This record gives sequence, C-alpha cells and structure tokens, in this order.
Amino acid sequence: MTAFDFTPLLPAGLPPAAARWTGLAQYNFTGGNNDADEVPVDGLLAAADAVIGREGRNLATYNLGHGPLGYRPLRDFLAEKLKRDAGIACTADDILIVSGSLQALDLVNGALLARGDTVICEKDCYQGTLTRFARLGVNVIGIPLDKDGMRTDALATALADCKQRSVRPKMIYTIPTVQNPTATIMPAARRAELLRLAGQYGVAVFEDDCYSDLIWDGERPPALYAMSTAGNVIHCGSFSKSIAPALRVGFMVAPWAIMSRMLPLKTDAGSGALEQMVLAEYCAPHFTTHVPALRKALRAKVETLMEALNEQFGTAAEFEDPQGGIFLWVKLPDTVDTMKLYQAALKEGVAINPGPEWSTDKAHATPRLRICFASPTHRQIREGVAILADVCRREFGVPTRIANVERARA
Amino acid sequence: MTAFDFTPLLPAGLPPAAARWTGLAQYNFTGGNNDADEVPVDGLLAAADAVIGREGRNLATYNLGHGPLGYRPLRDFLAEKLKRDAGIACTADDILIVSGSLQALDLVNGALLARGDTVICEKDCYQGTLTRFARLGVNVIGIPLDKDGMRTDALATALADCKQRSVRPKMIYTIPTVQNPTATIMPAARRAELLRLAGQYGVAVFEDDCYSDLIWDGERPPALYAMSTAGNVIHCGSFSKSIAPALRVGFMVAPWAIMSRMLPLKTDAGSGALEQMVLAEYCAPHFTTHVPALRKALRAKVETLMEALNEQFGTAAEFEDPQGGIFLWVKLPDTVDTMKLYQAALKEGVAINPGPEWSTDKAHATPRLRICFASPTHRQIREGVAILADVCRREFGVPTRIANVERARA
Repeated sequence: MTAFDFTPLLPAGLPPAAARWTGLAQYNFTGGNNDADEVPVDGLLAAADAVIGREGRNLATYNLGHGPLGYRPLRDFLAEKLKRDAGIACTADDILIVSGSLQALDLVNGALLARGDTVICEKDCYQGTLTRFARLGVNVIGIPLDKDGMRTDALATALADCKQRSVRPKMIYTIPTVQNPTATIMPAARRAELLRLAGQYGVAVFEDDCYSDLIWDGERPPALYAMSTAGNVIHCGSFSKSIAPALRVGFMVAPWAIMSRMLPLKTDAGSGALEQMVLAEYCAPHFTTHVPALRKALRAKVETLMEALNEQFGTAAEFEDPQGGIFLWVKLPDTVDTMKLYQAALKEGVAINPGPEWSTDKAHATPRLRICFASPTHRQIREGVAILADVCRREFGVPTRIANVERARA
Repeated sequence: MTAFDFTPLLPAGLPPAAARWTGLAQYNFTGGNNDADEVPVDGLLAAADAVIGREGRNLATYNLGHGPLGYRPLRDFLAEKLKRDAGIACTADDILIVSGSLQALDLVNGALLARGDTVICEKDCYQGTLTRFARLGVNVIGIPLDKDGMRTDALATALADCKQRSVRPKMIYTIPTVQNPTATIMPAARRAELLRLAGQYGVAVFEDDCYSDLIWDGERPPALYAMSTAGNVIHCGSFSKSIAPALRVGFMVAPWAIMSRMLPLKTDAGSGALEQMVLAEYCAPHFTTHVPALRKALRAKVETLMEALNEQFGTAAEFEDPQGGIFLWVKLPDTVDTMKLYQAALKEGVAINPGPEWSTDKAHATPRLRICFASPTHRQIREGVAILADVCRREFGVPTRIANVERARA
C-alpha cells in the first residue's frame, strides 16, 4: 500500500502524532495503575457470573434500557456511597455514569469552556487536566498549595485580580481530597471558604474526587458538593482507584441545570454496560470491606517507597508523608531538572512523572517529580528507586552519598 | 439547594439542553438495539468466567498493559476476522479498539475536520453522523443512492463541481455494506469506482462497516479498505450489531499515517477492558456460529415487519426487501410528514425514526421513516405497525383501507 498524504487534510491545532507504543517500563512509577494483588478477582468473577446470568439479555439494548445516565443499580449504589462517605445528598437521577473520570473532564470542559476563557486550578495539578486546558486554549491560573491544599488566600487574590481585569473565570477545578500530585486534603473550613469565594464571584466549581476512597484512616471532610448551598458545584469520582483502572468507569454528580448541558455532549451512546453491571453487583455487598484492605496494601507500599527514598536519596529527596492515594510528590535539589532525569531514567527502565508536566509553574516544578507506588511490587519499588538514585547521581551529582549496605546486597 | 445560573458561563454553540429521560417507548422501532433472545448469554458468561479468572489481575493496569490500541487478543481476533470476512490484510498493530463506532466517528472527524470544511456522504445517512457534521459546522454534500448504494456517477459530478469551486472535500463518509438507513450493499465494481474517484481527487474515505456481519446470506464484497491501494481509507466496525450494543466496543483499521493523528485524540485512557476481554474470549471460538443464528432470527423479524406493513399499510408503504441489517427504510405517500407522524405515534407508545433526521435532503426524506426491527418481539412488531397505521390514517388519511380481519381479531 502506498502512503497517501493525509497532511493537507489535517486541521490546524492537532496534537503531535503518536509514537508507536513500545511497552511499559520495567519499573513503572507513572500512571494511575493499581496494585494487581488487590484486584478483587474472585469477587468480580462471582459478580459477573450472577449479573450476566440474570440480566445479560439486557445487553441487547443501549444503556441496558436504563437511560442515558447509566445502569440504575450502579447509580443507586453510588447515591448511598456518596451519602455515607462524602455527605452528598443526591438521588440516582443526579448521577451520570461516565467512561472514567477523564470523560467527566471532557464533558465539563465542553459545557463550560471556550478558547480564551480563564480557569483556576491548583498550581501543581493532574497532568490530564492541564493538557486538556492547553488543547482548549484557555488561560490557566494556578493557585499555590500548602499542606491543606489550595490556598484560599491566594485564591481570593486571584479572583479579585480577575474581577479588576473584568475577567470572570469559568470554573475552579480542584482536587480537594488527596490532591494530585501533592496528596493534600483540604480541611472543611477551607472548603467553606473556597465555596464562599466561588459564590461571591459567580464561578462554577469542579470537584475531582477520584482519590477520596484511598485515605489511610478512611476519614475525610464532606465533599464540596455536599457543603455547597449555591448549586454551582460539579462533582466527579471514579472506580479506577478503588477497584481497577482498566474498567474505565467514573461518575458525575451535578445540578440538572448543568447536567442537562453536559449530557448531549456524551455522544457515545452510553458507557460500557458490562463494567457497570459487574461493578454494581460487586460493590453493593463488598465495597466497604474491599477498600480498607486496599488502603492497607497501599499504605505498606508508600512506606516501602519512603524508606527507599530515604535510603537512596537521603536528605536530597523531600516529601510529606501522604494521607492517602497512590503517589508521592517529591522535591529534589534545585539543580535537578526532572525532565532530563525522566529521559535518562527511562533508558534504565525506570519511568517517573517529571514535575513540569504536573504544574502550571514550570520553574517551581522542575526539581519535582511524581512517583506512583501502587503498581510496582515492594521489590520493584526498592530496585527502581535505587536505579533512579544512580541515574540522578550520574546526571546531576545528587544524591551525593553512596547507597548503603542494603542496596549493595540487593 | 438554590439554582446557580450557569447560563452566563456556557460557551456559544452548545447543543440544546437534554430533557429528562422518560423511558423507552412500548413499541420501540428506533435505535440500534438488538434481539434480546439472541444475546449469547451463556457464552458470554463462560467467557467472563474464564478470562476474569485468568487475567483479572491485569485490570489493575490501564489498557491491561496491552497499550493504547487495546486488548491484544481482541485485536488478534479482529485481524483474522477482517481477513476472512472483509478481505482486509492487516495486523493487530493496525487496529484500534474504540468505545463503540461512535467514538470512531469522533476520532476521524477530530483528525480531519475543521469548521467550514466539506464532506461527502450518502444522501440518506446515519443520523449520528449527520448530527456530528452539523455540530462541527462542516458543509455536507449528500450523494443520491440507488439499489447499489451511493451513486458513483453523482459522486463524480459532485467531486468535479467541488474542484471547479477550488474546494477539496476532506472525506467521503460511506456505509457501503448494509447502508444505514437504506440497507443497500455496494457491489465491488462500484467500490472500485468510488476508490478511483477518491484517489483522483485526493480525498480520504471513511468506511463505516458496522452492519456488515448481518447480511442474510453472509456473502459480502471486499471492504473498501481491502480494495484500496492508495492508503486513504479508514475502516471502522463494531460488535454492537453482531454481539450486543450495550457493550460499547468498536474498532478501527487505519494506516499509521492517520492512526497516529487520531490516537492522541482518544483521551479516555483506553476503552472498557472487561468488555474487550469477554468479547475476545467469546468471539474467538464462537463468533462464526453465533452470527448466522442471529441473522436467521433477524431475517424472521424483518419478514414479520414486511408482512405487517403490507397488511396494515398496503401499497401506501413502499420498501425494498433488505439484504441484511436491523432496519427498513420505508416510503409513505408524499402527503405524510414523518416528523409529525413521529410525534403523534410516540403519544400512542410507538417510536419510529422520522426520515428528515436521516437525510441531507429534508424534502426527499419527509415521507420516509426508518423502522428498526431487531429489538421488538414479533408480536410487538405486528401490534406496533398496526398502531402506526391507525395514527397515520388519523393524521394523514393514509393508508385508506381498513386494517384487515387479522388486525380486528388482535
């Protein structure tokens, strides 16, 4: 087959062409992958058995005949779960099942944003959100974080500044509960202040709550959606972190005023039904026992990671002990450029997330990196961090100290 | 919760707000729903059992660790199937699994179209394609059809006319195999002519092959993708029609030159893994026996539908005996406006697809309608058509004859 030249047919502004996939890195510290040992395989299998046998015929009908919001028993489970865990009072009719929370991002962006608009988010922020904002051509204001998440004093200043420039930001995108990548949790008082500011300036709030199931002690503040009285909050969550990411099942809760504008943008005739059926069947009886076991396994892994970092990097690696999640946001000495470290480490089989891809402030993020710890084994964590330290030492001269005896024996 | 006013935040050009879903019509002759009795429930159940037990742990990794093109065994099955059924020589690396063929439409449109561009399609055409084109603000040239599908003489004229106006259409979108809604199949010679014209004018071809498994006698011409030597064809297909639509699994075959531009637009981190796993496990051994049984059931239903139409509408309903598929494209007398018929019938519990929503030529399509026959039972088909005839008679005075004795006894 000769090569037809598609180039003259391509519209302006396409992302760069994809490269051929060459497989996962041997030591993969990127992506929201989960712990393979913690996938509840037997439970999912039993759930599939029961629900396919009972309702498999319904697969002949789009959305299983349950309408565009998705499989009703899954929405019923979520209404109960959101009430119990996040304090959200809603019904199944307020919940839309989506193809992973990434589709939620696309639906919210599609319903609110036009080129040239302004949005606000945390300064260190989920890469998938930042790349979407860039592709849409919106102006992004990054608000600095502290140990309690987005700093509302800085948010107040930013909003006032926008108002002075006659700019009305479309939304505040925030991950208040186990923020990605900083793993901070915003306390209730600050949530109230964020909501007060959003209301004052007439800005929508998009609460990305994907990691909220993975807090070590299970205790969390109420969701922004739950605390809001203004009806300006859109909430999204996911089963990627609590059950398994490859399933691609997320959900949104939103006032009908905006849900009704997002729904027509979901042009996929529904999300995968089998995943929805199996999740509903599995989660209703097992979610509350599965998730604590998963948290325990993840906590053990982050302890291994922190130990390995202390051992291999010593004081060169700075991080907070996270309260939950699957990632650690690490600061290396200012001389380290993690974009370069990323390239060099990848050649040695170690994949990391370089900070600049996860921040609106490239300079601030250059010596920072995100390390995901759920997917690699304890042994891979130890080995991968040791290799990373070797590469970092070779490329940047830090960490200076020699890896200790444990490493030599590995 | 008070009602926040999102209106000032909405960008221009959003589709109208969705209405609350009120359930499926009692007699539902719309949508690509399939025959519930023909869902291979036991086979899917056994497949789920086997594959979840064997590979369930892989759900912890995005795309099951098989990369962005999707689950490898499903792509392997498709490579073999496409070779056998459609004459397509390709490998698993040329195939992308998508979330139903609707996602394929979005990816192709995204990679090729900008506002103001020109596209070519069949004059009577899948509604989802037409609404997408409208939303994207592209100019659509509808080519008339005859019993052999898109008329290539008219296509030649349209392309020459575009050239004279210095317009280079971006693509020819076609459903050559069981065209939607006309159910025509384009013979090989006309396919060759379409490809020759596309090559001559430097236009891409998007072959939507969703219904090609459902030809009564199983015989089909080679796919355009298979016949093309220019490398300008993008092919898509689906498991919605052959297995079950609620699964939301489709696939694309495309030269890497354009696949590499579409892949970055698939921002959902992969399609649902469980569906892909179960389909691969089920289809590899069972596809070739399942599909003929499904065809037989569908053929029986279309015969019931044609009988019911003849009985209730007499000569007022004109249609061709289709060679496959799940829908019938019916012409009523010119005095009938199917947009109005649709509204009136819906009140009586009968849902149909009014012609104008399925055509680039509203006047031509006004007395036409699409009737989907796979989902309703034989009894529902008979009852629904009888109600439709009553409504049509009441609203438009046709069909004139009284329903026959069978109807009176019902």
